[in-house]
Amino acid sequence: MTEHTTIPASGGLLSDRELHDIDAYWRAANYLTIGQIYLLDNPLLREPLRLKHVKPRLLGHWGTSPGLSFIYAHLNRVIRLRDANVIYICGPGHGGPAMVANTYLEGTYSELNPDIAMDEQGMRKLFRQFSFPGGIPSHAAPDVPGSIHEGGELGYSLSHAYGAAFDNPDLVVACVVGDGEAETGPLAAAWHSNKFLNPARDGAVLPILHLNGYKIANPTILARIPEEELRALFTGYGYEPLFVEGHEPAFMHERMASVLDDAFDRIQTIQHAARNGLAPTAPRPKWPMIVLRSPKGWTGPKEVDGLKTEGFWRSHQVPLSGLAENPAHLALLEEWLKSYRPEELFDAAGAPVAAIRATAPQATRRMSANPHANGGLLRRSVDLPGLHDHAVSLERPGAVKAESTRVMGSFLRDVMRLNEAAKNFRIVGPDETASNRLQDVFEVTERGWMEKILPEDVHLGRDGRVLEILSEHTCQGWLEGYLLTGRHGLFSCYEAFIHIVDSMFNQHAKWLDACREIPWRRPISSLNYLLSSHVWHQEHNGFSHQDPGFIDVALNKKADIVRVYLPPDANTLLCVTDHVLQTWNRINVIVAGKPPSWQWLSMDKAIVHCRAGIGIWDWASTDDGAEPDVVMACAGDVPTLETLAAVQILRQEVPDLRIRVVNVVDLMTLQPKEFHPHGLSDREFDALFTTDKPVIFAYHGYPWTIHRLTYRRTNHDNIHVRGYNEEGTTTTPFDMTVMNGLDRYHIVESVLQWVPRLGRVRIGLKQKMDSKLLEHRAYIRSHGQDMPEILDWKWGQGPDAAPKRPV
Amino acid sequence: MTEHTTIPASGGLLSDRELHDIDAYWRAANYLTIGQIYLLDNPLLREPLRLKHVKPRLLGHWGTSPGLSFIYAHLNRVIRLRDANVIYICGPGHGGPAMVANTYLEGTYSELNPDIAMDEQGMRKLFRQFSFPGGIPSHAAPDVPGSIHEGGELGYSLSHAYGAAFDNPDLVVACVVGDGEAETGPLAAAWHSNKFLNPARDGAVLPILHLNGYKIANPTILARIPEEELRALFTGYGYEPLFVEGHEPAFMHERMASVLDDAFDRIQTIQHAARNGLAPTAPRPKWPMIVLRSPKGWTGPKEVDGLKTEGFWRSHQVPLSGLAENPAHLALLEEWLKSYRPEELFDAAGAPVAAIRATAPQATRRMSANPHANGGLLRRSVDLPGLHDHAVSLERPGAVKAESTRVMGSFLRDVMRLNEAAKNFRIVGPDETASNRLQDVFEVTERGWMEKILPEDVHLGRDGRVLEILSEHTCQGWLEGYLLTGRHGLFSCYEAFIHIVDSMFNQHAKWLDACREIPWRRPISSLNYLLSSHVWHQEHNGFSHQDPGFIDVALNKKADIVRVYLPPDANTLLCVTDHVLQTWNRINVIVAGKPPSWQWLSMDKAIVHCRAGIGIWDWASTDDGAEPDVVMACAGDVPTLETLAAVQILRQEVPDLRIRVVNVVDLMTLQPKEFHPHGLSDREFDALFTTDKPVIFAYHGYPWTIHRLTYRRTNHDNIHVRGYNEEGTTTTPFDMTVMNGLDRYHIVESVLQWVPRLGRVRIGLKQKMDSKLLEHRAYIRSHGQDMPEILDWKWGQGPDAAPKRPV
Repeated sequence: MTEHTTIPASGGLLSDRELHDIDAYWRAANYLTIGQIYLLDNPLLREPLRLKHVKPRLLGHWGTSPGLSFIYAHLNRVIRLRDANVIYICGPGHGGPAMVANTYLEGTYSELNPDIAMDEQGMRKLFRQFSFPGGIPSHAAPDVPGSIHEGGELGYSLSHAYGAAFDNPDLVVACVVGDGEAETGPLAAAWHSNKFLNPARDGAVLPILHLNGYKIANPTILARIPEEELRALFTGYGYEPLFVEGHEPAFMHERMASVLDDAFDRIQTIQHAARNGLAPTAPRPKWPMIVLRSPKGWTGPKEVDGLKTEGFWRSHQVPLSGLAENPAHLALLEEWLKSYRPEELFDAAGAPVAAIRATAPQATRRMSANPHANGGLLRRSVDLPGLHDHAVSLERPGAVKAESTRVMGSFLRDVMRLNEAAKNFRIVGPDETASNRLQDVFEVTERGWMEKILPEDVHLGRDGRVLEILSEHTCQGWLEGYLLTGRHGLFSCYEAFIHIVDSMFNQHAKWLDACREIPWRRPISSLNYLLSSHVWHQEHNGFSHQDPGFIDVALNKKADIVRVYLPPDANTLLCVTDHVLQTWNRINVIVAGKPPSWQWLSMDKAIVHCRAGIGIWDWASTDDGAEPDVVMACAGDVPTLETLAAVQILRQEVPDLRIRVVNVVDLMTLQPKEFHPHGLSDREFDALFTTDKPVIFAYHGYPWTIHRLTYRRTNHDNIHVRGYNEEGTTTTPFDMTVMNGLDRYHIVESVLQWVPRLGRVRIGLKQKMDSKLLEHRAYIRSHGQDMPEILDWKWGQGPDAAPKRPV
Repeated sequence: MTEHTTIPASGGLLSDRELHDIDAYWRAANYLTIGQIYLLDNPLLREPLRLKHVKPRLLGHWGTSPGLSFIYAHLNRVIRLRDANVIYICGPGHGGPAMVANTYLEGTYSELNPDIAMDEQGMRKLFRQFSFPGGIPSHAAPDVPGSIHEGGELGYSLSHAYGAAFDNPDLVVACVVGDGEAETGPLAAAWHSNKFLNPARDGAVLPILHLNGYKIANPTILARIPEEELRALFTGYGYEPLFVEGHEPAFMHERMASVLDDAFDRIQTIQHAARNGLAPTAPRPKWPMIVLRSPKGWTGPKEVDGLKTEGFWRSHQVPLSGLAENPAHLALLEEWLKSYRPEELFDAAGAPVAAIRATAPQATRRMSANPHANGGLLRRSVDLPGLHDHAVSLERPGAVKAESTRVMGSFLRDVMRLNEAAKNFRIVGPDETASNRLQDVFEVTERGWMEKILPEDVHLGRDGRVLEILSEHTCQGWLEGYLLTGRHGLFSCYEAFIHIVDSMFNQHAKWLDACREIPWRRPISSLNYLLSSHVWHQEHNGFSHQDPGFIDVALNKKADIVRVYLPPDANTLLCVTDHVLQTWNRINVIVAGKPPSWQWLSMDKAIVHCRAGIGIWDWASTDDGAEPDVVMACAGDVPTLETLAAVQILRQEVPDLRIRVVNVVDLMTLQPKEFHPHGLSDREFDALFTTDKPVIFAYHGYPWTIHRLTYRRTNHDNIHVRGYNEEGTTTTPFDMTVMNGLDRYHIVESVLQWVPRLGRVRIGLKQKMDSKLLEHRAYIRSHGQDMPEILDWKWGQGPDAAPKRPV
């Protein structure tokens, strides 16, 4: 391990005292890191280290930790000297013990966890709890103060960092990117986020690529490519790379201090120029980034059992193990711990000595206590426009058509406008804002863009609050970072391609779930998805664009976190949008279509319907409040249309059939109450779906999803679901429903199949439906488009409401 | 639109004749592309264009198409002149009509689809079928000859290209990367694939970044950054970028021909040096790549309705629309089509003129007929070692422990060895091969690596057949490309993080599904996943590493494509591995653990069990073949262990309880036969699970997955599932099961709850189980690890088989 001799006089930027203190801080952080990984007891080594002091299971990651603490120590220096406002994003989140160690040295950890005090007893608890049952996880999980990024799954640190920096002009987000993480796709794409960061309006991101050379059992790519390629790569990404390379502590302290000063100077220069009109139309600035090349497991054992350990992947997790079987390893551990000279670092009570405490900043300047990293502290509600101002007005169901997401776009335009001063609302998406028909927002803002702007460009500007990059990963990461720092937003995406971020969704859901247990974590705004251009509207792009399965990924996460909404028309979509923008600590998935579609509910009715999340549509039903012959349920805009068209056929053809139409907006209402807070009680469910009548359920996604939600319900055996069966290609919109058996004719056939008393009419109507289907097929094959729609909705007009002519 | 005057004499590399012919080919391809998007009839414009000749719905993407055809034409030239072996990967797969056009000009399309002949009638059909109901999709779907990449979801072209090039030393994979696609994470990561390509052993990838400047409604990042950054970026990625920029056809032909010659020369030089010992230990070569900057919608209408169209995003899809309402647009379309001078391109019969045909290569040198792009043509079975040679030998169930994946690793080592000469088997993974305990493969091969190798490096070499990069996307793309070109492989990954490739999985499943309908597509090897370090073994990394939901993503895809295996021990894992490596056109998901675990089945029994996929374990059951009191079902290694431990407790405590143990290896057996080819008939299912007895089902993943699979079964109402409920943190392995109620004690309690006749023993045993749980909790909180295991399996030893001492 590294010889921690007294640091020599530097003769450089740092005074001897500064050098000594910063090194002591770093040694203390390393000591506390190793302590967490190894020690159950004897935290200050005040007695000889024995096996009983060591944890029986050694868990955790040493390799990245000394580098993380080195960076932390030097950021502290810069913060102190400049009164800078900095948060720290730890890409290699498995360096959790290092992050905990630093927050403990800053005092924040003890403030938030009073039983882990800054004394020997507290240190014992600090060590013991780490990766211990009932204790804390090994990653930079939500219980680590100052963390907005757990880093368990790699790849998202840099997009989180940019998300945090947007609209936070005073903030510098220091983002440590591991060289393993740097190999991931999401991270590789996120470097280009600098094309969207406006130095006049946004804060700064300072990426620190930590090249410690190794992953679990392999070298990393970026650590092994030639230096000139590394430099070219980051120049190509648009940064000014600054290098800190070495392993000798005194030299490295000196160098890091100087490079960090340089980086912060450059940031200040860029921001000053942009904010003082010195470079208003200049091209995007070249922001600095730092490449820190230091040994993996730096200051750890150089060799273990004759094998290279420091500066190699053997340091990745626990460099010394098998202590029970190998007394030499126990001795080596003690020697290693003592190499940091704990007696110089902690006082008699076990608290860090004053000189070490003094190297950290104070109060909320501490990165572990910066309110931006506990965004709920800063979160203010978003101002919302009046729902009725945007409502589609309709005299009766089916009276008009509207483009649902277009209407939502006008609402979002006003959200943008109302919160323009607060600068706390953004829309992100992969170049699909207009394609998803939200283009009205461009009346009040633009797409953010820091590259060249040509005269012919449309809605492109430096101050745009819509962020579009063809990377769903980057969109998701930006929005997460933006929300985690206390702001609001929406991610608009094609339904099929939101699967690209399945795993990021999972991680964010787990983050939110873990936060519920941490009292000092304040609620953050929900992550809201609008999934449009959905499976039923991908008839033009074809099979590869058809996938409604994200809902199923979402349903696997904790009920408290996830909501799925399937508004059937524009007014219900508005209600849902208005609602989700007011919620916190959730992930809301809204699926809604964009083409002109029939509208069903007035705004007043939509509000009532959405509040319940599910309900009987009396105006479409023919059961007059009595027990129906059949329940026709629907969830999703296209299934609702096809169900209502089927109902219209049945009203015409089987006038005495008692039909009950149930529409589901909030999918979670279907689950039992004990499984989801929105779930109906069994009594409520039975009141809607009966206990014994056939239920023909037309659903937006995969049919089994409805079964998965309702298998405990009394009437489950009678629920027959139609949905997407992976039958699709490039065809017409109506043919998409036919291919999957979700169309009106198949729905009528389902009713014929399952309603027992229809014996007489069954054969004739079945033939009629079959011939309709043949007619459809012949028409689209010859015309290449759907037959003109001859539906004539007459709902809600008294006894004559049934349609007058055949459909 | 571009003035297609007679091409002037070039005075450069191309003779006048060559220039003329290549331009004619290109014009023909463009004409055919526009024809597909627009025309129902009058394909050669032999009468004035009228509205009735035009499709009613205009679908497709013009913007990228002329660039794709330009590249195609020039690759054809290089192939002809050098007799090169080239396939074409079309990243912007939505340029489908261009790809179809080129394959039609090469004659391949008509050979494979005889009713689309090379005459006027065939051309009419070619046009009509595109994006038309019953016709072909708008992307480069499987029905496009020469395509191994549909490109519907963007981001995977380059990893597919490298996958195709591995172990194909004579192949050059030309890979067109769209500048939109280049913004995605997976694509950004895939550039680094060059660090794994060995010029001596592998083929070459020639990336062609097509900068046409725009996505759907935005400029692209790479098209707008300064030229020096663009150059630095690709230098940094390790390439030698060659630029082709402009829009004037004659100039561009000349330039492209010359740059392509340069690129192919460079490839030859690199390969020659590597293969002739001229550069055996040299660093990775700088492979060439091409940046082609040409206008979006090149040669299309310059302006439409006064708005810039050529060279702008308005060209992205259909530049001229609303033809019915706007006669000027119809006239413009005719003018545009005629600008290519079709009368010079097609003869009286409607076939491409001889000069155009002659610019394309012949037979299998045509990129559309290259067998590598229909990999099943080249696929040879993989040689497999004997199962019994690798079997764990055990006298009776529970006699020994083994590390399942370690045993699998020894099998894979021999697969590597047996197929070393054939060079057709690879393992990919994100730096987890050893972590997942497959390290025995390193006895016969290494990790492939073309960067510097240090003396201390372990199992790292130029010829390694294990590919590790910390990018699940790149791993998946490589393997897909490798399989699609006729080879075999395995992707080993942590279970939780395979969600990262959910969307790629979906796309590959859709590709395979579509291939089933295309007779000339030969079967390719299945894509095999080993998911290890699974949810129940992530007690050390914690919550972020726990997610068994990939199975659910897989289940949503077509039954013919997907298989999910949950082998309970090493021998069953071997059987499953042996099986999946012999299958084709499937995606096989295997979930198996790595720590030392009890073994249950001898190899002979394992073979029988795996062949059935599900079965009663007589040796653990106590129903003696009669109707049981309870069925205890299990799927997955940890659930099987906990179920058997629960059975042991019950045998001890309730000796007369008739228990039937059912183990499920092949999850698909649970589905009804009509839903999945592996599904049990209802009779078979009822014979195993009874029609009315309680079933306590311990399952590896989310409990509702079992309900989703079995909701149609007779006895479904009595199936009670325990599984993962998103309750996890950093704790002990056994505590993971306790937190989720999957442990033996909770399983016993389930039996007590649901078996009616247990009245008397219920209370006492329930208390015993509760106190066991309390004991467990107290123990791990104080010791930090699980209690020593005191199980003593005595299965299968006659009447005394029940355990002798309490557990």
